[in-house]
Amino acid sequence: MTRLSDLPIRDDLRGLTPYGAPQKHVRYALNVNENTHPIPEPVARDIVESLAHAVLTANRYPDREFTELRESLAGYLGHGLTSDHVWAANGSNEIIQQLLQAFGGPGRSVLGFPPSYSMHPIIAAGTGSRWIPAERDADYRISPETAVRAIEQHRPDLVFLCAPNNPTGTALPLETIAAAYDATDGIVFVDEAYAEFMPKDQPSALTLLPGRERLVVSRTMSKAFAFAGVRLGYLAADPAVADALRLVRLPYHLSALTQAAAVAALAHAPEMLAMVDDIAAQRDRMVAELPALGYRPWPSQANFVLFDGVADPRATFEALLARDILIRDVGIPNALRVTAGTAEETDFFLECLAALGPGGAQ
Amino acid sequence: MTRLSDLPIRDDLRGLTPYGAPQKHVRYALNVNENTHPIPEPVARDIVESLAHAVLTANRYPDREFTELRESLAGYLGHGLTSDHVWAANGSNEIIQQLLQAFGGPGRSVLGFPPSYSMHPIIAAGTGSRWIPAERDADYRISPETAVRAIEQHRPDLVFLCAPNNPTGTALPLETIAAAYDATDGIVFVDEAYAEFMPKDQPSALTLLPGRERLVVSRTMSKAFAFAGVRLGYLAADPAVADALRLVRLPYHLSALTQAAAVAALAHAPEMLAMVDDIAAQRDRMVAELPALGYRPWPSQANFVLFDGVADPRATFEALLARDILIRDVGIPNALRVTAGTAEETDFFLECLAALGPGGAQ
Repeated sequence: MTRLSDLPIRDDLRGLTPYGAPQKHVRYALNVNENTHPIPEPVARDIVESLAHAVLTANRYPDREFTELRESLAGYLGHGLTSDHVWAANGSNEIIQQLLQAFGGPGRSVLGFPPSYSMHPIIAAGTGSRWIPAERDADYRISPETAVRAIEQHRPDLVFLCAPNNPTGTALPLETIAAAYDATDGIVFVDEAYAEFMPKDQPSALTLLPGRERLVVSRTMSKAFAFAGVRLGYLAADPAVADALRLVRLPYHLSALTQAAAVAALAHAPEMLAMVDDIAAQRDRMVAELPALGYRPWPSQANFVLFDGVADPRATFEALLARDILIRDVGIPNALRVTAGTAEETDFFLECLAALGPGGAQ
Repeated sequence: MTRLSDLPIRDDLRGLTPYGAPQKHVRYALNVNENTHPIPEPVARDIVESLAHAVLTANRYPDREFTELRESLAGYLGHGLTSDHVWAANGSNEIIQQLLQAFGGPGRSVLGFPPSYSMHPIIAAGTGSRWIPAERDADYRISPETAVRAIEQHRPDLVFLCAPNNPTGTALPLETIAAAYDATDGIVFVDEAYAEFMPKDQPSALTLLPGRERLVVSRTMSKAFAFAGVRLGYLAADPAVADALRLVRLPYHLSALTQAAAVAALAHAPEMLAMVDDIAAQRDRMVAELPALGYRPWPSQANFVLFDGVADPRATFEALLARDILIRDVGIPNALRVTAGTAEETDFFLECLAALGPGGAQ
């Protein structure tokens, strides 16, 4: 049998193991921040009708410019954005990859602030971009001064921020984004995958776009839109950014099915987003109730909660899995991350965690 | 207004223009080698049913390992292949990009034999791989000796072959692939996008896979399967090759919709492929009839015909477009490429070309 090491793979890949959040079939899947509410049935029917239409012409290549989808996304985002400001790809991961192919790559560097989205450094490596990790302030915050200091020290070609941050849920002040922008000549990328779960009075980085042609704000339909299976990430930026990505995107990268499903879902944005408030309420409930169990939850603006005070994260992860609950060990000592879902899911999670006793399974 | 050149894009991208086969709405779209026959309606119904099922769980991430799809693809390919030998991505373009991320990239090189699939050098550039063009023999053929000589001269990390070749339609002997394999320690990649249109007695490179762990054969559902809109490219190789690609693929790169549609279509492979013989007959008819119009068609094993003897390719392209026929100027002097479609499409194309007079529009 041929082993991977027998093949002429790149030296920098030797010995690596693939990204692998476990995909186990459990009753309570609270590990990858999916929306645990299925798509509402009337909306699903419209999506299927739109897909049925797309299948009839699937012998043809899809619209390479996905114009209708860009229009729908711009309409959803608001903020005076038009289709020219919007770009989309197969998940935010592909958005990030295309950005790094255009603005990063060999000889260029990306500054990030871990702990953050785990794919940022992996995609940096996959595109040959140098990844530079910088320190956060206490409680995972990033002040304008901290961001500027790191940028001045490392002079990166891109700065990656995550608002709210994954896996910590931490808010990111607009002042930090604006200060980072002013401190660099490079691209400032703000990953707003969880933006819809932010408090209503927390402004989006979209409000900073006018006059900042190097600022890129990404979103996804995976979370609030309950569309993880469809793989639709997108960004808003100056139209010149989309022109840059046209140079590196693979032609016809968005299938006719993806375009049709996303356009149909966006036409039902209010129904698709109906569960967002419920999910945020479950998140707030976990933050409120975890301290009574002896854990310290971090304030979260996303659809998940990171909590500290776990004696042995691996043991507690396994003990919950034995009860059909899958949460996430994100590699932070004494901490675990849990997705906010339905009230029933929160009930059962908190009940099982309580049953493990103080500090969780030992 | 911000221009692309105002942004900090990579220096090697400055001044480039994006890939752009024209996407015009015409009655006779014979330019990008699509299957001009829509998917048969009974099959389309099954695909839509499968999609409807997938939408119900689209709030969850798709199967990252697309196990059922890999099983379906292996079953379709035959040749004793199992799901472990198969990998898939969003079109052959993404297959090629992942291969180059794993085995090519900065400091590595790819040897190709232009004229060939125009995306090969573009994706090489996009992944930082050095592209080395080598000469073909007369009539666009590649003998074993020619392939070996180029490999020994350039010592590439990957060798890209296309069988049958696009845009020329030229057959590639298995002897050339085997000789290329023996001459290199690198990856030998055979792009069989048009394999289903080959004569029945022309063996596929799949027959060479046993014992050749560095040989990779790619296919697509875009052409024979009339599935260009769904974007499903795939490859067969030693299972270790799939392990290598797991290191560079973006997690969940294949959407639940793509997986569902492709699995449903593969269950109907005979119906989906029912038009292949008709299309090959139209191709052979064009090859037979073009000489009487004063053109020299190249022998083709694909679903298109390259023909020589065009006085002014640009003028003839435009003259045909004025009659609602879109074909392709592939940049070969005095030549144009036309896709083989239905009998009616062939009739109209040949009729219009004849009407332009000897050598086409001037």
